[in-house]
Amino acid sequence: MKVHRFIGAFDLHRALLQVTDRDIVHQMVRVLKLKPGEHVILCDGQGQEAVYEIKEAAPRSVTLAIIEERRANNAEPKRHVVLYSAILKRESFEWAVQKAVECGVSEIVPVVSDRTIKKDVKVERLQQIAKEAAEQSGRGRVPIVHEPKSFHDALMHAKQNDQNVFFHVIPANAGIHGSPMDPSFRWGDKRTGVFVGPEGGWSGEEAESARKAKWEIVSLGSRSLRGETACTVAVFLATT
Amino acid sequence: MKVHRFIGAFDLHRALLQVTDRDIVHQMVRVLKLKPGEHVILCDGQGQEAVYEIKEAAPRSVTLAIIEERRANNAEPKRHVVLYSAILKRESFEWAVQKAVECGVSEIVPVVSDRTIKKDVKVERLQQIAKEAAEQSGRGRVPIVHEPKSFHDALMHAKQNDQNVFFHVIPANAGIHGSPMDPSFRWGDKRTGVFVGPEGGWSGEEAESARKAKWEIVSLGSRSLRGETACTVAVFLATT
Repeated sequence: MKVHRFIGAFDLHRALLQVTDRDIVHQMVRVLKLKPGEHVILCDGQGQEAVYEIKEAAPRSVTLAIIEERRANNAEPKRHVVLYSAILKRESFEWAVQKAVECGVSEIVPVVSDRTIKKDVKVERLQQIAKEAAEQSGRGRVPIVHEPKSFHDALMHAKQNDQNVFFHVIPANAGIHGSPMDPSFRWGDKRTGVFVGPEGGWSGEEAESARKAKWEIVSLGSRSLRGETACTVAVFLATT
Repeated sequence: MKVHRFIGAFDLHRALLQVTDRDIVHQMVRVLKLKPGEHVILCDGQGQEAVYEIKEAAPRSVTLAIIEERRANNAEPKRHVVLYSAILKRESFEWAVQKAVECGVSEIVPVVSDRTIKKDVKVERLQQIAKEAAEQSGRGRVPIVHEPKSFHDALMHAKQNDQNVFFHVIPANAGIHGSPMDPSFRWGDKRTGVFVGPEGGWSGEEAESARKAKWEIVSLGSRSLRGETACTVAVFLATT
């Protein structure tokens, strides 16, 4: 049976824990209908987790006793990957966030690029999707979803990364374009930015900015991937 | 501007072509409202395509004149990849089919495994999703979606592949398990089967069958990926 995981501000040093956080209690008691005797994994959001047993499940608080001592979560990627994705249609973008989190992203920056059609996102809702995907995929931290940034601001934000990889596929005759990543591609050691464009691709000016910044400009092959597919695959490659 | 692509039984040797296929005419005239003068790419589904200009768009037929001679489509992968995926929830499975096609799959076999909850699929609808994803991603052929098979029948079907890769992630203490793929992993030359399990994972017996068949048993890393995410990433890796 699947053991449910919860990420929250838990003090995992405690042998006996009382959880009163409204959302978590609601999830445990109302949604999952967990009963005394059942086990859950509590994760402190800082990369530590422990197994607890439910002792009492009341409408507003759940009491738990520790079963297995705290240990480091082993599902966090070694590389800190920041996904800069052009904003996609609502459903596609929610999907992109969920999949990027499963694949190990650490931060997501929604980008308003020259060819982005949709300009706004519901950050709070995306953050909730990120939290659920983090819990479900066994991660030890909840990735951060930032407020949308212009391409220029994303460029500034990306200066703190050791490496930036700009995924760019355009017809062969249109100037700057990415070469397929070959197996010898070297990912950075610590902090990598991954840029994925909108349906119409990055504009010529945006690609030129990436070139000037000496970023790696690559493609994901000869097939056109939808934005959410490119986000999924690019983050998987970057965290592996 | 994006040039729309259509895959169908077109005779691309013809300088002047009259399309009467109901679905394609409907798509061109009603849905996309294409007008005389606009260009489209017609693809014969056998890996050849050509650019045509619309000359006349009537409710039941569209007449087109060739603009650029037929040429080989360059978006088909070199490796023939067959995805054997446990049937997922409807929406997730439709998503998996769409993404697997974008990523270059050639055949999809829905599998009823020991832990599959959903046992049936609408093959016709999935085939339509595969066709649209093939057109949208620039492919030259429409991948085949098979009728669901039992794990045993999938095993038999997979015997014709040069290589079979069995994605399997289970807790470390539960016997057979996949090691993460490392960069030296060698994909087969021609025809590769890729097995992706249901939410609860493959059963012990299924993993044992894979081991006996001497398949490659691998994992996609330390995070639990949902079925549709695993299909997307596994097919991308297999076709690259």
